[in-house]
Order: sequence, then C-alpha cells, then structure tokens
Amino acid sequence: MAVDAHSRHVDPGALRAEARAGRFAGTSAGHCPGFPQANLVLLPRSLAFDFLVFAQRNPKPCPVLEVLDPGDPEPRLTAPGADVRTDLPAYRVYRDGSLVGEVGDLIDEWRDDAVAVLIGCSFTFEEALVAAGVPVRHLEHGVTVPMYRTRVDCVPAGRFAGPLVVTMRPIPAGLVARAVEVTARYPDVHGAPVHVGDPGALGIADLDAPDWGDPVDVRPGEVPVFWACGVTPQAVALASSPPWMLTHAPGRMLVLDFPNERLRS
Amino acid sequence: MAVDAHSRHVDPGALRAEARAGRFAGTSAGHCPGFPQANLVLLPRSLAFDFLVFAQRNPKPCPVLEVLDPGDPEPRLTAPGADVRTDLPAYRVYRDGSLVGEVGDLIDEWRDDAVAVLIGCSFTFEEALVAAGVPVRHLEHGVTVPMYRTRVDCVPAGRFAGPLVVTMRPIPAGLVARAVEVTARYPDVHGAPVHVGDPGALGIADLDAPDWGDPVDVRPGEVPVFWACGVTPQAVALASSPPWMLTHAPGRMLVLDFPNERLRS
Repeated sequence: MAVDAHSRHVDPGALRAEARAGRFAGTSAGHCPGFPQANLVLLPRSLAFDFLVFAQRNPKPCPVLEVLDPGDPEPRLTAPGADVRTDLPAYRVYRDGSLVGEVGDLIDEWRDDAVAVLIGCSFTFEEALVAAGVPVRHLEHGVTVPMYRTRVDCVPAGRFAGPLVVTMRPIPAGLVARAVEVTARYPDVHGAPVHVGDPGALGIADLDAPDWGDPVDVRPGEVPVFWACGVTPQAVALASSPPWMLTHAPGRMLVLDFPNERLRS
Repeated sequence: MAVDAHSRHVDPGALRAEARAGRFAGTSAGHCPGFPQANLVLLPRSLAFDFLVFAQRNPKPCPVLEVLDPGDPEPRLTAPGADVRTDLPAYRVYRDGSLVGEVGDLIDEWRDDAVAVLIGCSFTFEEALVAAGVPVRHLEHGVTVPMYRTRVDCVPAGRFAGPLVVTMRPIPAGLVARAVEVTARYPDVHGAPVHVGDPGALGIADLDAPDWGDPVDVRPGEVPVFWACGVTPQAVALASSPPWMLTHAPGRMLVLDFPNERLRS
C-alpha cells in the first residue's frame, strides 16, 4: 500500500496509459488520491443477469458503479475513453471456477458476450477516514487490509450464493462512532460497517489468520470494526464455477475519472 | 389521494389481502402510512438484463427496491408472503408496447419467464416532507402529482432509451432547501430533486399541461421543484415496444412490509 510519493501517479488517465502500455503492473493502491478505484468482474452475458440481481440484493458487499454493455470494453460513464481489457495493471483468468493464470491484458481473453461490472472499493472511504482523523492501521503498516470469510450468508440470486466477506480495521473505541459516520456517507463503496466488535459472532475464530490480505494488530482500547468487502462477489461468483470469468488482480484496480466526492451521499 | 380516515387501511398485509380477494381496486395512495409502496414492472427475462442495466445507469428515476427471481411472484425481501400477481389493486397489460387492458389480477397473464422489478415511489418522501413542515400541494388538493416528459435524455442501455419524466411540487422559496435535505435522505425513492425552478430548461413549456396526473397551481413566492419520477422506466420500457409487459395500474401500487424509516439513508 505504501507508495513512494516520488513515483506516485496522480492522474487516472496517466496511470491507465502506463498500464495499457505494459509499463505499470503494480498495485494501484496509493496512486491517484481523490479518485475512486473499481473492482472488475467480467462474466458472460448468460450469467450477468443473475450477477446483477445478486448485487442488487447485497448492496453492501456489491455496490455496482457501472455495468458495461455486452462486448463493450469502455466504461463510458465512470472512465470515458478507458478500456477494461488493457487499462488495469494486471488481471486474473478463471475457467470453471479455477484460477488458470494472471495476465497483463485481456485482449486474447475477450469475448463478444463479455459483461464488465465495476464494483466500488473501500479505498475511497479510507481516504475519508484518514482525512477525518481516524487511523487506518494497514495503511500505516503498508500492508493489505485483512479480509475474512464470515458465517453470514449473502442473499442468494440464481446460481450465485455464498458467505459475506468482510474487511477488518481496528479503531480506537472513542473514534468508532466517527468511523461509522464517515463511511456511512459512501454507500457506493461499501458504506457503514456491517458489524462492530465480537468477531466470534461473524464466525471469525482468529483475527490473526485472515482468509485474504495481511493480519494487523488490534491494540488495547481498540475495537475490531468490520465492513462488507468487494471480494464477496468474486468469491461468490467463483463458488458457482462459471465456465469463464475474468477479474482484476488483487490490488490492481481500475482507476476512475471522477472525484471521490461524487460518491459522497 | 384523499382517503377517508374511516376507510383507510393501516396494515399492508390487510390491504394486500383485500386486493387479492378482489374487494379493493382503488388507489393505494393514502393507505398504510409509514410503509413504502412500489411501482411494478414485469418483463420477460430476455429483456430484464437490459432493464436492470438501464435502472443502474439511471438510479434517480429507477431506484430498484427488489428484483424477483424469474417466474417467482413472491417479493421475498420486501413483502414476504405477498404475491405480485394478485396483491395490487389493479394492473395494466401491454403487448408490443400498446395498452391492451386493465385487469384485477395477473393469474391469466403470468409467464414462467416473468421477472418482476419493484421500483421506489415518492409516497415515502412525501410523508417525510409533510412531517418536516413542507406543504405538498397535490396532497392538499387530493389530486395526482403532475408529471412531465422532459427533454433530458436518460442514459440508454440495450434496447431501452428515452426521456426523463419528472414530478413537480411547488415549494415556498424559504422551504426549498429543507425539501432538498429531506428528500435527499431517501435515495431509494428518487432522492433529492433533479432540478429547482425554470421549467423551460427541462423543456417543459406549460406547467398547467402535465403529461400525466393533474395540474396544480404555483403561487407567488413558490418555486417549482422537480423530482425524477417512477413513470420514467415504464415510459422508456414501453417506447421499446416489448412484446409483453405488465405494470401496476396508476396509483394502484404494491404496499411493502417494512417501515419507511429503513429507506432513510
């Protein structure tokens, strides 16, 4: 997460151009402050209806920022002129629910019936937390936020069903209410927490053993606070073993063109 | 809109049971205060993906409250146990984009590939306006809110494209800001206004000649305030001449089971 200020991209279009040219394959986290970054899920059109209904029923883990027309690689509303086949630093390719490779672009993988769904990412509300004086531990440590599979089931839709995945940030008890207030203003990037304290109630046995990302310490006087996570739709989609599915590689997101402020409710 | 308090339903389930039994075919407006009411659009599954994408791209006129599984008539999340085929007071049937009839239930019209989409309705925020001391003229006069086709185009999606439809409420100038604040809290029932003042900028030539509903007077010291309207998705869907489409009859909505407060952001 820690990006040398010297090498930090500030312009979304410039970062995307570097990714498109194959000169930037690293994490997009920490780049382009002030602009949202999006999770990417690509599915065949035959599965896209069920996926959109799943997202509508589970808006906290699956806030949809844009749905592209079938076969169209341009996010005309959120990043006009960009191309989801080339403008992310790296991608993952799944077949029948199994990861078969990580690639730098999707030109060879593209299909005419591909539907790209852009899903909000917590980077936006983390900037707002920091600006509001709420410390964010994994950013301080330059690691990836810890993520956990819970025993809370999402509302199923069609062939998609599975557990809610959450992120955890340890928050000083006196700042928990502020953290809720600040993130609640950003419903399209997961919004307010889904749970405050008591990991056991979510079925999380050990905070030190996240299912994805890196563990961070919860210090005395801090409360573990849990937000719905954009890994949920990926995990749920994969669990249904779709014949074909493409996503961004972890931390390699699509940087969008409008200011974070537009996501504030 | 004016409902005799004597005959007003207060319980959503009771109103739906009366509608199901064929004993209630009137407007649902004014009944069940405190509970949301939903616009209903039923399309074949082959068109439902495009319709959901249209709604995602146009959330102010098309806030989706629930999408039912194909062939499923039960709104399991917003009115469990209800049946969209029978529990609304009246319905409209369209073929190839033309109105072919108004019916009391959809039992004969139902198809296994029917997808029901429930769309938020401004009744919820009108209750909040009145509670906040903002007068709502058409409610005072017991008429239907005036609606206008604008020259603002919605963002198209697949085969769906067309103009934004708005409602107009005249608001005293000193209460316009409050009206914005109050309605902005309810994004799933159209939210904040899309336009304040200057009907000409929306392409509305004559406020006294609405395209749907009844005209209301705008008095000295009042500003015409325009909100996105749930008639938009119906108008846009019809303009694409779908082979089969069913909707609620105007003012005959589905009353949902959860309190309005849950829609407040």
